[in-house]
Amino acid sequence: MASAAVAANEATGAGALDRLVEATRPGMDRVNAMILSKAESHVDLVPEIARYLIDAGGKRLRPMLTIAAAMLFGRAAGSEINFAAAVEFMHNATLLHDDVVDESDMRRGRAAARMIWGNQASVLVGDFLLGQAFTMMVDTGHIEALKVISKAATVIAEGEVFQLAKARDLTTTAADYDTVIGAKTATLFEAATEVGAMAGGADAAGRRALRDYGRELGFAFQLVDDVLDYRGEAGTLGKNTGDDLREGKMTLPVILALENATPAERETIVAVLGQPGAGEGDLRQVVAIFERYDTLGRSIERAFSHARRAREALKGLPPSEMKTLLGDVAEVTVARAY
Amino acid sequence: MASAAVAANEATGAGALDRLVEATRPGMDRVNAMILSKAESHVDLVPEIARYLIDAGGKRLRPMLTIAAAMLFGRAAGSEINFAAAVEFMHNATLLHDDVVDESDMRRGRAAARMIWGNQASVLVGDFLLGQAFTMMVDTGHIEALKVISKAATVIAEGEVFQLAKARDLTTTAADYDTVIGAKTATLFEAATEVGAMAGGADAAGRRALRDYGRELGFAFQLVDDVLDYRGEAGTLGKNTGDDLREGKMTLPVILALENATPAERETIVAVLGQPGAGEGDLRQVVAIFERYDTLGRSIERAFSHARRAREALKGLPPSEMKTLLGDVAEVTVARAY
Repeated sequence: MASAAVAANEATGAGALDRLVEATRPGMDRVNAMILSKAESHVDLVPEIARYLIDAGGKRLRPMLTIAAAMLFGRAAGSEINFAAAVEFMHNATLLHDDVVDESDMRRGRAAARMIWGNQASVLVGDFLLGQAFTMMVDTGHIEALKVISKAATVIAEGEVFQLAKARDLTTTAADYDTVIGAKTATLFEAATEVGAMAGGADAAGRRALRDYGRELGFAFQLVDDVLDYRGEAGTLGKNTGDDLREGKMTLPVILALENATPAERETIVAVLGQPGAGEGDLRQVVAIFERYDTLGRSIERAFSHARRAREALKGLPPSEMKTLLGDVAEVTVARAY
Repeated sequence: MASAAVAANEATGAGALDRLVEATRPGMDRVNAMILSKAESHVDLVPEIARYLIDAGGKRLRPMLTIAAAMLFGRAAGSEINFAAAVEFMHNATLLHDDVVDESDMRRGRAAARMIWGNQASVLVGDFLLGQAFTMMVDTGHIEALKVISKAATVIAEGEVFQLAKARDLTTTAADYDTVIGAKTATLFEAATEVGAMAGGADAAGRRALRDYGRELGFAFQLVDDVLDYRGEAGTLGKNTGDDLREGKMTLPVILALENATPAERETIVAVLGQPGAGEGDLRQVVAIFERYDTLGRSIERAFSHARRAREALKGLPPSEMKTLLGDVAEVTVARAY
C-alpha cells in the first residue's frame, strides 16, 4: 500500500498543489483582497492579530478548494469569493481558539498569537473573525449556503468539545477518532467544496459529489496531520513533534498502538500521554512502539483510502482538467506524509 | 435628578419587569423550549455546560424584548421565536467567553462555567452556541435579520477587544467608554429589538424606533451594571464588588473620578486599578473618592437619560399597552441602581 501511494505521488507529482494555485489564482486574488479588507477594524488590535495569523499564510487550501469547486461547474458569479473568504476566516477563528484550548506555543512555525497578545485577545479576535465570516456569507443572500456554513460552525465546535472530552481517555476507539476528525476537520473541507459547488451553479448531484469529495479529503488531511505530528515533514522528530501526545490527544497512531500494546508497552505510552513536560527520550520510546505495530503506516494507509474515495466522489461528473486536478490534489495531500 | 428617577421608579413600579414577563409568556414558553432543544448535542459536555449557564437563568431580558418588539407590531408569524432564542444564545456565548477573558470566578451568583469545566470547554461551548444562534437565524430564511445579527456579532467582539485594549489605560475618556459599551452591550439589545420588530412586520420607521429603543436601553443597562459593580444591588459592598476595578476595567465611575481627582487621590486609584489582589480596604478608599465626586450618581444620571431616550424613541408609534410597558421597562432598568 505504501508503495502504491508513492507511485501515485510520483504520477500526480507534488506539482498538483502548484497547479491548483495556478488554476485558482484570479479568484484567489479577489479572495485575498477580501480577506485583508474584512480583517480591518477601527480597533487596532483586531487587524494586528488577524493579519499576524493571516500573513503567516498557510496554503489557503480551503478557500482554494471553494474557488476550484465553483470553477468546476462554470457558472460562478461572484459569491464564491465571499464563500471562500468566509471559509478561511472560520478556519483562522478555529486556529485562534484551538491554540488557547491546546495551550500551544507555536503555530505555522511562529509564536502562536496567544503567546504575543494573550489568550484573551485570541478568544475575542476569533469571535470577530467568526462574525465577519457570517457577515460575508449573509452579504451574498444565499440562504442554502448559509445553512451549510452555520451548521458547519456548530459541528466543528462539537467536534472540538468531543476531542477535549476524550483527551487522555484510554478507551477511545478508532470510531471515536473518526467522529472527532469528521467533525472538527472534515466538516469545514466539506462545507468549503459544497458551497463552492453551489456558487458555481451545481445541480443536486454535483453538490453532493463536491460535498463528499471535501469530506473525504478532510479525513485524509487530518490523518496525515496526525501522523506528521509524530514524524515531522522531513521524516525526523521536529521541534513540536509529539505535541498531540503531550496534550493527551487520542489520535489514530496512539489508539492503534494501545490496541496492540503489551501491558509494559501500554505503561510506557500512558506515562507520557498528557504529560506536557515529556522529553524527547520518552517520545522516542513511544514512537518505537508505534513503529513496532506500524501504526503510523496504517494511519497513512487509511488517509490514502480516503484520498482515493475523494477522487471517486467526482467520478459522475463530466471529464475536465479541474476534475482531474482535484483528484490529484487529494492524493498529494497524503503524499506529504512520505 | 436622583429624586426624579426615584419618582419615576415609584410611578412605573418595579412591576414593569413582571408585566413584561407576563405579556411575553406565550412566546417565551416557545423560546425556552427552543433554547433547551438547541442546547442538545450528542457530545454530553455541550448540553451539560450550556444548561448550567442557561438554567442559572438571568432574566432573559434580551429575548423577552425581541418577543415584545414583535408583539408591538402585531404580525409576528413565528420567526421571532428563533430570533429571540438566537439572541439569548449569542448572549450566553459572550458570557462564556467573557468569563475566560476576565478570569472571572463567579457568574450569576454561582461558580463560572470555566471554574468547573475549564477555560477550554468554555471557549468551545461558546463557539457551539454561536453556531447554533446562526443556525436558528438561518432557519427562518430572513436575510435582513441575518444581516443585523451577523453585524452585531462582529461589533460585539470588536467592542470586547477595545475594552481589553483600554484596560488600565488612564487616558481612557468617557467617549471611549461609550464606544465600548455601545459595541459590547448596546449592540445586542439593539439587534434584539430590531429583529423583533422585523419579525413583527414593522415598517422602516418602526424598525428604526425599536432599534433606537434597544440601543438606548442597552446603554442604560450597562451603565447601571457598572455602577452596581461598585455598590452591589443592596447598596452595600457585595462579594464580587469592585471586580471591574481589580480587572482594570475603565468604566465611567473610575473615568470620571480620574478626571476630578487630586494627584494623591489619583495615586490611590491607580494603586488598586488592575490589582487582582486588592482588598476591601483599598476598595473602600477608592469608593470614597467616587463618593466625593459623585461619580456613581453621575453615572446613574447618565443611565437615566438613556432610559428616557429609549422611551422617546417609541413616541412616533401608535399608543398601545406594549408601547407604554416598553417605556416603563427602560426606566425600571435604571431603578435597580437605587
